[in-house]
Amino acid sequence: MYPVSPQAYDRAITVFSPDGRLFQVEYAKEAVKMGATAFGMVCKEGVILVSFKNIQSTLLVPESMKKIFSIDDHIAATASGIVGDSRRLIDYARVEAQKHRVSYNEPSKVETVAREIGDVMQLYTQYGGGRPFGVSLLIGGVDDEPYLFETEPSGSVIGLNAGVIGRSKKEGEEFLEKNYKKGISIEEGIKLCIRALKKTGESPITKETVEIAVCTTKEGKFKELTQKEVASYL
Amino acid sequence: MYPVSPQAYDRAITVFSPDGRLFQVEYAKEAVKMGATAFGMVCKEGVILVSFKNIQSTLLVPESMKKIFSIDDHIAATASGIVGDSRRLIDYARVEAQKHRVSYNEPSKVETVAREIGDVMQLYTQYGGGRPFGVSLLIGGVDDEPYLFETEPSGSVIGLNAGVIGRSKKEGEEFLEKNYKKGISIEEGIKLCIRALKKTGESPITKETVEIAVCTTKEGKFKELTQKEVASYL
Amino acid sequence: MYPVSPQAYDRAITVFSPDGRLFQVEYAKEAVKMGATAFGMVCKEGVILVSFKNIQSTLLVPESMKKIFSIDDHIAATASGIVGDSRRLIDYARVEAQKHRVSYNEPSKVETVAREIGDVMQLYTQYGGGRPFGVSLLIGGVDDEPYLFETEPSGSVIGLNAGVIGRSKKEGEEFLEKNYKKGISIEEGIKLCIRALKKTGESPITKETVEIAVCTTKEGKFKELTQKEVASYL
Amino acid sequence: MYPVSPQAYDRAITVFSPDGRLFQVEYAKEAVKMGATAFGMVCKEGVILVSFKNIQSTLLVPESMKKIFSIDDHIAATASGIVGDSRRLIDYARVEAQKHRVSYNEPSKVETVAREIGDVMQLYTQYGGGRPFGVSLLIGGVDDEPYLFETEPSGSVIGLNAGVIGRSKKEGEEFLEKNYKKGISIEEGIKLCIRALKKTGESPITKETVEIAVCTTKEGKFKELTQKEVASYL
Amino acid sequence: MYPVSPQAYDRAITVFSPDGRLFQVEYAKEAVKMGATAFGMVCKEGVILVSFKNIQSTLLVPESMKKIFSIDDHIAATASGIVGDSRRLIDYARVEAQKHRVSYNEPSKVETVAREIGDVMQLYTQYGGGRPFGVSLLIGGVDDEPYLFETEPSGSVIGLNAGVIGRSKKEGEEFLEKNYKKGISIEEGIKLCIRALKKTGESPITKETVEIAVCTTKEGKFKELTQKEVASYL
Amino acid sequence: MYPVSPQAYDRAITVFSPDGRLFQVEYAKEAVKMGATAFGMVCKEGVILVSFKNIQSTLLVPESMKKIFSIDDHIAATASGIVGDSRRLIDYARVEAQKHRVSYNEPSKVETVAREIGDVMQLYTQYGGGRPFGVSLLIGGVDDEPYLFETEPSGSVIGLNAGVIGRSKKEGEEFLEKNYKKGISIEEGIKLCIRALKKTGESPITKETVEIAVCTTKEGKFKELTQKEVASYL
Amino acid sequence: MYPVSPQAYDRAITVFSPDGRLFQVEYAKEAVKMGATAFGMVCKEGVILVSFKNIQSTLLVPESMKKIFSIDDHIAATASGIVGDSRRLIDYARVEAQKHRVSYNEPSKVETVAREIGDVMQLYTQYGGGRPFGVSLLIGGVDDEPYLFETEPSGSVIGLNAGVIGRSKKEGEEFLEKNYKKGISIEEGIKLCIRALKKTGESPITKETVEIAVCTTKEGKFKELTQKEVASYL
Repeated sequence: MYPVSPQAYDRAITVFSPDGRLFQVEYAKEAVKMGATAFGMVCKEGVILVSFKNIQSTLLVPESMKKIFSIDDHIAATASGIVGDSRRLIDYARVEAQKHRVSYNEPSKVETVAREIGDVMQLYTQYGGGRPFGVSLLIGGVDDEPYLFETEPSGSVIGLNAGVIGRSKKEGEEFLEKNYKKGISIEEGIKLCIRALKKTGESPITKETVEIAVCTTKEGKFKELTQKEVASYL
Repeated sequence: MYPVSPQAYDRAITVFSPDGRLFQVEYAKEAVKMGATAFGMVCKEGVILVSFKNIQSTLLVPESMKKIFSIDDHIAATASGIVGDSRRLIDYARVEAQKHRVSYNEPSKVETVAREIGDVMQLYTQYGGGRPFGVSLLIGGVDDEPYLFETEPSGSVIGLNAGVIGRSKKEGEEFLEKNYKKGISIEEGIKLCIRALKKTGESPITKETVEIAVCTTKEGKFKELTQKEVASYL
Repeated sequence: MYPVSPQAYDRAITVFSPDGRLFQVEYAKEAVKMGATAFGMVCKEGVILVSFKNIQSTLLVPESMKKIFSIDDHIAATASGIVGDSRRLIDYARVEAQKHRVSYNEPSKVETVAREIGDVMQLYTQYGGGRPFGVSLLIGGVDDEPYLFETEPSGSVIGLNAGVIGRSKKEGEEFLEKNYKKGISIEEGIKLCIRALKKTGESPITKETVEIAVCTTKEGKFKELTQKEVASYL
Repeated sequence: MYPVSPQAYDRAITVFSPDGRLFQVEYAKEAVKMGATAFGMVCKEGVILVSFKNIQSTLLVPESMKKIFSIDDHIAATASGIVGDSRRLIDYARVEAQKHRVSYNEPSKVETVAREIGDVMQLYTQYGGGRPFGVSLLIGGVDDEPYLFETEPSGSVIGLNAGVIGRSKKEGEEFLEKNYKKGISIEEGIKLCIRALKKTGESPITKETVEIAVCTTKEGKFKELTQKEVASYL
Repeated sequence: MYPVSPQAYDRAITVFSPDGRLFQVEYAKEAVKMGATAFGMVCKEGVILVSFKNIQSTLLVPESMKKIFSIDDHIAATASGIVGDSRRLIDYARVEAQKHRVSYNEPSKVETVAREIGDVMQLYTQYGGGRPFGVSLLIGGVDDEPYLFETEPSGSVIGLNAGVIGRSKKEGEEFLEKNYKKGISIEEGIKLCIRALKKTGESPITKETVEIAVCTTKEGKFKELTQKEVASYL
Repeated sequence: MYPVSPQAYDRAITVFSPDGRLFQVEYAKEAVKMGATAFGMVCKEGVILVSFKNIQSTLLVPESMKKIFSIDDHIAATASGIVGDSRRLIDYARVEAQKHRVSYNEPSKVETVAREIGDVMQLYTQYGGGRPFGVSLLIGGVDDEPYLFETEPSGSVIGLNAGVIGRSKKEGEEFLEKNYKKGISIEEGIKLCIRALKKTGESPITKETVEIAVCTTKEGKFKELTQKEVASYL
Repeated sequence: MYPVSPQAYDRAITVFSPDGRLFQVEYAKEAVKMGATAFGMVCKEGVILVSFKNIQSTLLVPESMKKIFSIDDHIAATASGIVGDSRRLIDYARVEAQKHRVSYNEPSKVETVAREIGDVMQLYTQYGGGRPFGVSLLIGGVDDEPYLFETEPSGSVIGLNAGVIGRSKKEGEEFLEKNYKKGISIEEGIKLCIRALKKTGESPITKETVEIAVCTTKEGKFKELTQKEVASYL
């Protein structure tokens, strides 16, 4: 169309570039790429989330640096990108999930929660006065069966069999595309995620820096693995 | 009039260019052209929607990537452009359709729903502080007879016998102009859309990447074809 | 006064140029000039509206592309310019006309409706945060006698014996100034408009692309001519 | 003070220039100078308004192009500048005049009405987000005696024996300063205004393009002269 | 500090310059300097206000060009600068004075009124979206004894024995500093103001262009001098 | 970090510079430096405030140019910088102090009042649309013992034994650091402040230009010294 | 991606840079680095906070320059950066803590308070019209066991065994990483912090410039050490 310099269109979320792009949304995705890598996977018996956390100092309390957040008993999420942004989205989803329980006397569907988060994220791409969320989420859970969704700064929501967000999204996805098989067991799924995580170069991979949560179809509740259990997979 | 550089007038939706154009609306239409191609068609016995979905990874769950959205029993829509934007419009239309049922004790007309969507889209072309919707919709349905409407970022609403949105709108329309005949049967209509879709170069065309929904005048309800049924047309 | 470059004053509706012009209003008038041509005429027995519609594809449903809009039984309007903008103004006028009926138990005067539309259009030329309406309207109707008004982006409202808006406003007006006579019959008036329309170069002139509506003083209700009736004038 | 380029201070109504000028108000006065010329005069037996209207096409209905507007029985105004802007001010003044009648059970004073209009105009010179009114008004009327006031874009309100607004304000005022005498009769006053109007070069001066209204102290009501009466003065 | 160009800091009221100045307030003071000169003086028996009015045309009605405004029986003000701005401040002060009478069943103090005006003026120097008032006021009155205050665009309020505002503030103040003595009689005070006015070069000094108002401690009410009385001082 | 030009970050209060500075707050402090010098001191028997006022014209009424403001019986403040700004803060503090008395049936603590003023000042450093207060205050008072606080444009609040604000803050502080001793008597304290004031070069130092207020622990009420008492210290 | 100059993206908090950074948040962290150094530490018997205060003048009242703020009986915080900003956050946390006590009849958890502060800080990084808080906080307290959290301008909240904020954060953390051991006694912890503080170069280290507060698990209440107690550690 016209010779386009991104600089001319990338200062405000409310401005399309001549080729129809929203640069501020694209830049927000770059913020996601600065976050630690996290994995999600639908397995035969449930869904798993596996997150790396960046603990660079012995002064930090690893337990306080949660990377996997419970939204409701049967739904959890892991995030990559700006930490404060993800906390806001998780808090929002928790409230919505509780309101759903109160209003309809039943737990939310995983997809409903994922879409509610995506809707909020979309709003911040269409109005001036704010900025898009600089964060992607993997939202896993079990209602009639195990589900996994990814939301990202544009507000799009995608259903996944297995997914990766953060610094090593691309390498992680390539690895999973080659190695993931539908119907994989939770046991094998966790091992696969750990293998993928090791390939991404995140380090050190220790029982303190890896967080794993599992929700089986049978129990319908997320459980975080203990450090000892995590260690058994490394 | 004056020598005009688009750059001077294309940063804000509230500014006309000297020749009376709204560049931000035109740029939003470019965002639509980045979306996957979708078709709609009025046939003898009803109306059909045929959408392609871009599934580039085996990690994706095709079923979760809906391209055809039910608005009411007898009205559905397919969208091309920014995914999050279309979700907002569809949600809005669903609520309006339900309010109409409650207020008037009768289903909405297809045209009414299309105009309500178009009205919202127009608002975002006239006020600052936001941006136009980066999405076009084909809205199909049956009330007294089958109807198809297209809405686009400017908020214009057009009645169609057959229509195309997305990446291959131009090629698709040229194909349909040559091959579509009024009174075509649903059976033939679906085949024609598939032929058109194949011509656009979208690929791969498989039972997972093509979504088809049909609403017959007789039944007055949209039904999505099963993957098996879709396969039978490919 | 000072050497003036329009660029310096044409980005915001709230800014006068040093010579007292509002460039954004002038640019909005350019948007009107991109619309299809429409005619209105006061005749001996009533008022007529004759509009051309641009149907460039066989996929379009001509009936859905209304160019003449009923505002109340006895008042109708035709518009040139941005389609979505005119829909908003017409919707506004319809509501006002109904409120008038409810409040005063009598139909609105044609001039009242025209001024209400003009008032809304004026507002959008004085406040920031929005843009002027990119549309002109011919508003015809009968109360004590037949009336025709034109409103345009600046919000001005003019009473006319005969008027033209859209792409060929200038040529159309020159033609009518030469050929229109007060007291012309509806029959002759329609013929004169068709002749004018043919002169403007709009094409093709067919029973599908020309829309005609008539309101006689006697009946006091607008009636749209059937395609067959239209054809009889071509 | 500093070398000043007007361009640096003339984009916003909320910005003073280094020498204390408000350029946007000055530019709005330029818009007034593009309007047709109008006269007002205090005479022995009452007050008169004489306005020229620019009727360049035989398609126009001269009666619809009112240049003198009744505000209340005993108060009328004529305006030069942006037509839509003057309509808003007149509408505002009418409502205020009616509210005054209802609240105090007596008609408004001419000066009160003029100041109310000036107050609104001043507001638009002090706040951002809008623009000044591009219009001047001559407001005439009779309460205890005949009065004439002029309001202009800055919101100033001036009492006058005789006044001129619009394109030929300067020439008109020079003519009246030479020829107007206090205690002039209405008959002579109208003649004087017509002579002044002819001197300004506005043309054609005909019974259709000149509008005259008179309010005598005796009757206390404005009456518009018929075209025949107007013709008798030309 | 840094090499400072005023241009960099003088477009918005909300921006300090590096040396702590508010340029927009300083520019507003320039607007005051364009206004006609006015004097105020505390005398032995009361307080006086003497204002010049610029009557350049015989078409003007001098009585309508009030330069001294009553705020309450015992308080009056005269203003220099933008006429519409001063009207707003006077109207505000009148309402506040009346509210004070109603709330406390006693007249306002002169100082209270002056501070209320100054408070409003200060607000317009601290918030964006508006501009400072381009006007200074001399507010005179009598409560327990005669008082005179000056307010200016920054919102500062100063108590004065004698003061000057407008075009010739500087010359006027120099003259008064040399010639004013505390305890001067009203008679002598008026004469002194007239002498000062003549020195400033304002012309013509006539009974029509000079407005004088006096409030004696004894009567506690402002009275405007008749033109005849004014003439006796010239 | 980067080569930084202050100009790039000093136009808005809501923008940090790359080295973490808020230039608009720093510029507001420059406005304070243009104000007259004022002193505050905690003494053995109470707290004192000593302010210089700039009286450059015999036309001014020194008594009206208050530099020390009572906030409550036992709390007073003196200000340097923009006069109108300080009046707003003092008014705010007075209202808060009265509300405290009504709510808790006891007088405010000096520190509470100082912090309330500082909180308001901080707000204007964090939000756009306004500007910081261009003023510093010394707030003195007695509750359980004598206190003195300084607030400045950033909103910081500091407890002091002795303090200086305004034009000669730096010289004044250096003088006091050398000469102030804790437990100084009020008598000696006032003398010390006068000595400091004389050193700063403010002139003329007379009983009219120096304002002194004292609040003893015993009486718990601020009293302003008469001109005669002031003179005894000069 | 593109050659990026930070200047292009660092003026507004609502704008991402092309590589996904929020420059205004990074600049706010620079403001924190200008603040005095403070330490926090989890010890065997409780949690401690040790803060340095910059007392450069004998005129200051050290006791008034609080660096450790009580939020509730069992929670306290110390801050580095803009003083007024920290006061706002502390005030907010105090109110939230009291509301928690009233609503749930139990004290807040330390983590809850830290997250509430972080949530407010995050908000100011996502909306225009304000600026991020230029402050970091160390929040210590005891509920079931001793906790320490750090919040910073981005709104992130980190759990720590020991932490440092302010001018010497980096050196302080390096020192603590080498010397801190989990299970350290309060006695040793305070000594370690003092050693660290001495290493940072802050001076003078005296009983007036060092503030220490301790909360033991046993008592569950914060106590500030007296100057004498502080002196015993120096």
